Amino acid sequence: MVLRAGTRLRAAVVGTGLIGGSVLLRLHAVGLDVTGWDPDEQTRGQARLAGVPMAERLTEAVAGRDVVFLGGPLPTLPATLVEVAAATAEDCLITDVGSTKAELAAFAADRGLTNRFVPGHPMAGTDRAGLAAALPDLFSGAAWVLCPAPDGLAAFRRLVTLITDVFAARVVPMAADRHDAVVALASHVPHVLAGALAGAAHRSPLRDAVLTLAAGSFRDGTRVAGTPPHRTGNMLRGNRDQVLAALDQVTAFLDELAGALRSDDADALTARCAEAGAARAELAGRPYDQQVRSFPADAEPAEVAWLHGVGAAGGHLSGCGAVAGGVSYLAHLPRV
Amino acid sequence: MVLRAGTRLRAAVVGTGLIGGSVLLRLHAVGLDVTGWDPDEQTRGQARLAGVPMAERLTEAVAGRDVVFLGGPLPTLPATLVEVAAATAEDCLITDVGSTKAELAAFAADRGLTNRFVPGHPMAGTDRAGLAAALPDLFSGAAWVLCPAPDGLAAFRRLVTLITDVFAARVVPMAADRHDAVVALASHVPHVLAGALAGAAHRSPLRDAVLTLAAGSFRDGTRVAGTPPHRTGNMLRGNRDQVLAALDQVTAFLDELAGALRSDDADALTARCAEAGAARAELAGRPYDQQVRSFPADAEPAEVAWLHGVGAAGGHLSGCGAVAGGVSYLAHLPRV
Repeated sequence: MVLRAGTRLRAAVVGTGLIGGSVLLRLHAVGLDVTGWDPDEQTRGQARLAGVPMAERLTEAVAGRDVVFLGGPLPTLPATLVEVAAATAEDCLITDVGSTKAELAAFAADRGLTNRFVPGHPMAGTDRAGLAAALPDLFSGAAWVLCPAPDGLAAFRRLVTLITDVFAARVVPMAADRHDAVVALASHVPHVLAGALAGAAHRSPLRDAVLTLAAGSFRDGTRVAGTPPHRTGNMLRGNRDQVLAALDQVTAFLDELAGALRSDDADALTARCAEAGAARAELAGRPYDQQVRSFPADAEPAEVAWLHGVGAAGGHLSGCGAVAGGVSYLAHLPRV
Repeated sequence: MVLRAGTRLRAAVVGTGLIGGSVLLRLHAVGLDVTGWDPDEQTRGQARLAGVPMAERLTEAVAGRDVVFLGGPLPTLPATLVEVAAATAEDCLITDVGSTKAELAAFAADRGLTNRFVPGHPMAGTDRAGLAAALPDLFSGAAWVLCPAPDGLAAFRRLVTLITDVFAARVVPMAADRHDAVVALASHVPHVLAGALAGAAHRSPLRDAVLTLAAGSFRDGTRVAGTPPHRTGNMLRGNRDQVLAALDQVTAFLDELAGALRSDDADALTARCAEAGAARAELAGRPYDQQVRSFPADAEPAEVAWLHGVGAAGGHLSGCGAVAGGVSYLAHLPRV
């Protein structure tokens, strides 16, 4: 439940760039009691100008809060998590919005924080940066990954409700390492390919003519190469092994395409293009079936296994609620 | 001049799929006397339903016309050019809308057609196919490459006027082989990369989860993988050597990105991402300077050399007109 009996939920957002800032703006827009903090003084000033409360110090922002969202650059998240956990009560829920999950999840487990820290990743963004680019509706309809732990299911369920209610996002439950493998292919490698295409064009002696003739395929294929370079670098380095593995899969397919072209094998070339087209067709629209599933309070392993299965199957949650002695989820699974 | 003294220009479009069909719809929409033809009976019926005249036979469509646009699949264009040239008068201008130019330009030169055939390529499209996807405004503001030949400048100038007046396109003058090298990087390799990303996702055991988490970077990076496979295959095979060479440049940059990531070299990774970002920044908006340039009637080599220079510099033409004893062009060149 978002609201505690008789009181407004008290939230904080620490690190208010593009993603954290969009979380902050949304929490504020729906009327929650929310305070932000960012290490950058100018960012704090911008938020206050927009009428959003900002604390001068991190500890002031998070003290007494029910839920804290951690934003900011990936490499800063472990230290921020420790600081926020120390400055808040045991029943304060903490989550983050970083683009990789396995390292931070392992770090939280080492520190004994899995009962109240739920790793998270809202899958939305723009190629711009900073609070000035933040949008309260950025996550509407987007996938928002949350990583449930067997000893953190109470926290996970509270977050599912908060994120579906407040952000209108699709919650995708997923194990942290599975998330990292999936986003390597779904997001990180696309950034690498966009960078390779834009970089090669930039270096080419034909650059000026290439930019003039660039139509939809080049513009779309290089769009995320406009992302701030440090942010892309941090994202890739935070998921290095998975990105390199996914890149191997993509270059293997690329080699097949190039091989078919080199040997002028029209049938093989068309077949590979058709295979690629199948993924696009599925992306354009898959039908979903609804499923309601309940678990008693003491079936944590079964609940986590089912949640992981929902995410692995390409499904998502649109809500959860307390039922007598347990929990009930509303899931949406691709029709098979 | 589009109009001959006292009469409407008589145009034909042969092969009315997505691109040829969009040319046909535009010529019809602006009130020219235009007739289309397509080998597909259903396509002819669709066009007639839209009120556009369609002939039953190619020769009927092109007989007595002032200008003929050749559309349809790339491999069919040489034979269609021969057929159209035989069925039209010596003063009938012919151009095509195919996505590669060197082969067809060489073919036309072998047949002695350079005085009235001007190779062309409008740089616009969608990932859909056929006349049903055609749009009369598809080329508005788009780059439209035309390849001028020293003995075909009269035809080239007539086409510049027609295309800037009727289609509101930016005419980019370019040698045929230069065009093919440029579009390899600006359009063909982006299709290969999109195919490799979509194909690898389709084959991945994580496919369902990848499609669920796919946000902007994956959607944009794979969009043109939804292009009909035969069309992509024909396009790549029609420009094989240039595509493979451009792909080598892109994979070289890709290797640098992957190498920096593998060795966890943050500075190198950020530097490569910044280099890629520079191309995006230039794409977002370059300032142009206008230039008016005139040539006498007998300075063909100088005129062609200047035109090629405009295209190579990333410039374009917005019109041309007859001046005493010669021609005058209005060019737009990126400010240096």
